[in-house]
Amino acid sequence: MTMLSATEVTPIPTSWVGPIRVSGNAVDDEVRVPLATYETPLWPSVGRGARISRLVEGGIQVTVVDERMTRSVILTATNAAQAHAAAQRIRERQDELAAAVSAQSSYARLLEVHSEIVGNLLFIRFAFATGDASGHNMVTNAADALIALVRSWESGLEYGSISGNYCSDKKATAVNGILGRGRSAVADILIPRELVEQQLRTTAARMCDLVVRKNLVGSTIAGALRSGNAHYANMLLAFYLATGQDAANIVEGSQGITYAENRDGDLYFSCQLPHLIVGTVGNGKHLTGVEAALERLGCREPREPGENARRLAGLIAATVLCGELSLLAAQTNPGELMRAHVQLERAQKEQA
Amino acid sequence: MTMLSATEVTPIPTSWVGPIRVSGNAVDDEVRVPLATYETPLWPSVGRGARISRLVEGGIQVTVVDERMTRSVILTATNAAQAHAAAQRIRERQDELAAAVSAQSSYARLLEVHSEIVGNLLFIRFAFATGDASGHNMVTNAADALIALVRSWESGLEYGSISGNYCSDKKATAVNGILGRGRSAVADILIPRELVEQQLRTTAARMCDLVVRKNLVGSTIAGALRSGNAHYANMLLAFYLATGQDAANIVEGSQGITYAENRDGDLYFSCQLPHLIVGTVGNGKHLTGVEAALERLGCREPREPGENARRLAGLIAATVLCGELSLLAAQTNPGELMRAHVQLERAQKEQA
Amino acid sequence: MTMLSATEVTPIPTSWVGPIRVSGNAVDDEVRVPLATYETPLWPSVGRGARISRLVEGGIQVTVVDERMTRSVILTATNAAQAHAAAQRIRERQDELAAAVSAQSSYARLLEVHSEIVGNLLFIRFAFATGDASGHNMVTNAADALIALVRSWESGLEYGSISGNYCSDKKATAVNGILGRGRSAVADILIPRELVEQQLRTTAARMCDLVVRKNLVGSTIAGALRSGNAHYANMLLAFYLATGQDAANIVEGSQGITYAENRDGDLYFSCQLPHLIVGTVGNGKHLTGVEAALERLGCREPREPGENARRLAGLIAATVLCGELSLLAAQTNPGELMRAHVQLERAQKEQA
Amino acid sequence: MTMLSATEVTPIPTSWVGPIRVSGNAVDDEVRVPLATYETPLWPSVGRGARISRLVEGGIQVTVVDERMTRSVILTATNAAQAHAAAQRIRERQDELAAAVSAQSSYARLLEVHSEIVGNLLFIRFAFATGDASGHNMVTNAADALIALVRSWESGLEYGSISGNYCSDKKATAVNGILGRGRSAVADILIPRELVEQQLRTTAARMCDLVVRKNLVGSTIAGALRSGNAHYANMLLAFYLATGQDAANIVEGSQGITYAENRDGDLYFSCQLPHLIVGTVGNGKHLTGVEAALERLGCREPREPGENARRLAGLIAATVLCGELSLLAAQTNPGELMRAHVQLERAQKEQA
Repeated sequence: MTMLSATEVTPIPTSWVGPIRVSGNAVDDEVRVPLATYETPLWPSVGRGARISRLVEGGIQVTVVDERMTRSVILTATNAAQAHAAAQRIRERQDELAAAVSAQSSYARLLEVHSEIVGNLLFIRFAFATGDASGHNMVTNAADALIALVRSWESGLEYGSISGNYCSDKKATAVNGILGRGRSAVADILIPRELVEQQLRTTAARMCDLVVRKNLVGSTIAGALRSGNAHYANMLLAFYLATGQDAANIVEGSQGITYAENRDGDLYFSCQLPHLIVGTVGNGKHLTGVEAALERLGCREPREPGENARRLAGLIAATVLCGELSLLAAQTNPGELMRAHVQLERAQKEQA
Repeated sequence: MTMLSATEVTPIPTSWVGPIRVSGNAVDDEVRVPLATYETPLWPSVGRGARISRLVEGGIQVTVVDERMTRSVILTATNAAQAHAAAQRIRERQDELAAAVSAQSSYARLLEVHSEIVGNLLFIRFAFATGDASGHNMVTNAADALIALVRSWESGLEYGSISGNYCSDKKATAVNGILGRGRSAVADILIPRELVEQQLRTTAARMCDLVVRKNLVGSTIAGALRSGNAHYANMLLAFYLATGQDAANIVEGSQGITYAENRDGDLYFSCQLPHLIVGTVGNGKHLTGVEAALERLGCREPREPGENARRLAGLIAATVLCGELSLLAAQTNPGELMRAHVQLERAQKEQA
Repeated sequence: MTMLSATEVTPIPTSWVGPIRVSGNAVDDEVRVPLATYETPLWPSVGRGARISRLVEGGIQVTVVDERMTRSVILTATNAAQAHAAAQRIRERQDELAAAVSAQSSYARLLEVHSEIVGNLLFIRFAFATGDASGHNMVTNAADALIALVRSWESGLEYGSISGNYCSDKKATAVNGILGRGRSAVADILIPRELVEQQLRTTAARMCDLVVRKNLVGSTIAGALRSGNAHYANMLLAFYLATGQDAANIVEGSQGITYAENRDGDLYFSCQLPHLIVGTVGNGKHLTGVEAALERLGCREPREPGENARRLAGLIAATVLCGELSLLAAQTNPGELMRAHVQLERAQKEQA
Repeated sequence: MTMLSATEVTPIPTSWVGPIRVSGNAVDDEVRVPLATYETPLWPSVGRGARISRLVEGGIQVTVVDERMTRSVILTATNAAQAHAAAQRIRERQDELAAAVSAQSSYARLLEVHSEIVGNLLFIRFAFATGDASGHNMVTNAADALIALVRSWESGLEYGSISGNYCSDKKATAVNGILGRGRSAVADILIPRELVEQQLRTTAARMCDLVVRKNLVGSTIAGALRSGNAHYANMLLAFYLATGQDAANIVEGSQGITYAENRDGDLYFSCQLPHLIVGTVGNGKHLTGVEAALERLGCREPREPGENARRLAGLIAATVLCGELSLLAAQTNPGELMRAHVQLERAQKEQA
């Protein structure tokens, strides 16, 4: 094909940071994590959080709350009444839909069907379990089959689109957090006052003020959507690239809420990550470096389908917390952020 | 430092796609573009758009509309009246602020100051010209100086945060599109009916229906924010990685609107990219592969400050249009998306 | 009580407009509707739509898609793991919750429980059937009982709030449309080309262009949320006030999407109203004028619980369509909106 | 006209609540305020806040931050390049636009022009000073003239719409708060610990927790937009109706942020109201009851244009704070909200 020149690679600087101490319902381990990024100050920033995790009993606790992958389709009717009749029929015959999905794939399993009608347009959002895969292609394939099945019922519906943006893939939306997409995790930690002061050079009170003013109020006036954090996107990008994930999914991954409480001087600190679109098998995971990274993370073990991916999600959530904690602490002190950048760049130049 | 293991690299598969024919106020050229991604079906998808660009007089026209980089800070007052008095003072003495910025940096130039008051919190959003750099560090540095200057006026304000999330960096928000952040570009093309049918296997009418139903209506019910497109994030990620950009900025980059018109069977097709956070110098741009890529793109020429980065933004916008056009065309036909993926994966396995 | 002076009334100008011809799954009738508003140009505007409804076979078809009322509460845990354990328990014991609701009220019935965890905060959103009432107080009462029940399980949860803003009442949010709140209706009509030209002085093509450019693209760049219409709020306010509804609920009512298609010159026109918070009994409905209005609308008949309120929702949806259709048609013609206002004000002054 | 039956009125129960003690840059007075609503528990709720305002030195301080009214239009070009050229021309010739506005109206004055391009669509958002009027019609009239003027420059632009939803009128959007629309006010108060305990039966710590968890975190997960409050819409509706305002504007009025701080046990409490669309003259203000209400509020005095409306906005902001404070305090105590409703309804029945 003339338009594709021979394939090369772009090398992204990568470091294994940690180890991070992680507990909870998906991981109980002390693990180094790989971060591939041009923004190398991220390494010591996450590293500081990792160090704290090792100094606290149980480290960072991660709770994986849900998992699913979605695809929404558009079917067009003559009018809303016809679309509504079709939606009801789909609800009533959901078992048939589930059977069609299971017949087609040994991994995909239909979990939920959600519909919305706009005029004569019927949007149907299918949610699937997809095992250890992130599931992008699996759900597209399943949705193709489901469209054909629904249309075979002679419901008068026409094909609108295989993707109706109500999925939503690689877009910041509200639906993903409310109805679910990807693995949903919450990471939290309770940091004793002394560690807050010594390791983070701040106090629980100042951290809580900053979380409210910047992450909640600031995000609100910025017109953010279901989101209130400092920089989840940075950690997600670096972790996704290093483990062969489709890193365009950091768009929805970037949404989530950092919440903190001052508990008599100790700092309760948490990161909510409602849509981590990650897998340990599937597209991009067969590359040599990627496989090695997943193995080193302990995410290619013989386990029940889904467990490796859950472990991966747990490690990512803990990593995000490390980086979020560290940056916010720096921002409680005037000038610290810039000083840290300058020092780091100087150190790197001296190394080079 | 014990927590950082020796640096390695993560190699991202990369292909130079095109050339794309681009015209407009930032580029007039025929250029191959580098796409670094694990999602290799993106290459032929963008390639199809590139082919069409070469078949149309003038190709894809890109209009760069604005450019600026921003940082918002939080200062705290006793109450709203005091915050308002300070905000007025800042407006009145904006020249002093501008002078302080210019004294500190030879590239940064203060363009605009925007403030918002929530209770006793004063959010100030500074916008700067940053030459050919994306400007992340430049604006942090400038904001540090501006905080110090404003506080020296004895306005009773205390330091709140160097970043108040009203910037907004790597978050999907409304403020970036409305007040501006990064380079803002619109790419468009008018594709004759025959090309729509032969190259895209669809019609202008079906493309326009899909754009309205999926990108506009579907995004709206998904609860998207200032956004209506199919997959800008994919092209941005690949281009950003290949050229040393901070790819976490695809989060805000992913917002934008695809708009199409059926002009008597010809297809007018456009992509609006209000916040491309890109630079041709600065952090990440000194790496060997990155420098070579920027040079090959013609973005390291001796030009007026900002011109190289504008050219880069123009090429990115054109690339996004190529991929958006191609995917949407595929989605007008039932099953085509999945078939294309399957064929491609088969071809790649055969090559391997 | 010294701070309350004797009660008086504010008289809002009111007119019965129509009749509107309505069909569908909630109404099949020709009905005049009351509009209480200071913005009296609304009357002839809705009146024009009503006239068209009478000229089209079947008139405006309204499909009521769903109905429910919601209240979200906040319970606080020690950490996310504890909150997650509690959320799982609530899911498993949903039958107990449903029984508690039914024991307390003869109308309220628990339909759905949805939870979300942010750090150690557990948000639980309860959805109820509430018969013919809008249900504000019914769901608060039920939620009080449910909090007590859940806390009696010794799950370690503390009271956070009886309302967690995830309900969401009188706020524009995404959750109401996605998970449902109030009665959800879609109104649509197919208007023959001649009527479009004669009655609306426009064409289907121009209407569709306007709907896309203004309601979809314009709303998107404005940063609207799950919304794309011209002025639903106007019709809702006037109808709500005239029928004793809590008109602050026009906030969420104002969200919805107008969608149109050009069908060979005929105009398919639809209004989606996902959250009409309305009732025919309950607070405000006992006032003399309000009762008379509801009776005249045929919404106080002896019917199954919910049917009167569904009829009311259907009439409101049809009324919204009338006003939306008329204003958009006016806006397709330069200057028409202003001319209409000026003429109307002149006419009213002459009458006075 | 056959479709309009003779005009009647809908009487809305109304009470004058207060007086509220208000200070700041728009009001310095102790004023009773009229609230027209079916939700009569609002009266004692606002009354409680009013009582507190009278017990605190200076009462509620209101800072009016900005004022303007807006209208956005759509003009269509051939492509983005042409739209951009036109936008630049409009910026360069803004003085001509301002002159055209001033020539046409003695009150309207052009303040700002903001444009955004989507494909070949040019959205232009005009902001005007409108004296004491809310200005809906004034800005429509001005925008008509501006469209004609711009098109007379032979810029190749066609009429798209007199309103492009980027205004945005009666819709919840981000643009209104960021670029401004209506009068923007912040109300705040510092309540000593004893008053918090005695009058509000709560503590500053519990109020701050609730504000963060419900108004900020809860609103965020609900997918709210630039908004975090409990029930601004209730107070706005009641005040708007009683003073002849277009109450459909509570939709955007409902957006705003309640922010609180625990200052050593004293409660700093604030309400931000970025878009109060209110006037003391113009449509709806000539009705007998309305005029009397505005006079009693002291908003029909001979003052500089805009001052009466600013006073009105200030009184509304203070009233919103009263109601917000009172409801939130009630929600800090389990069961209090429901008990208050029940007691009040019983009291009203006994009175009746």
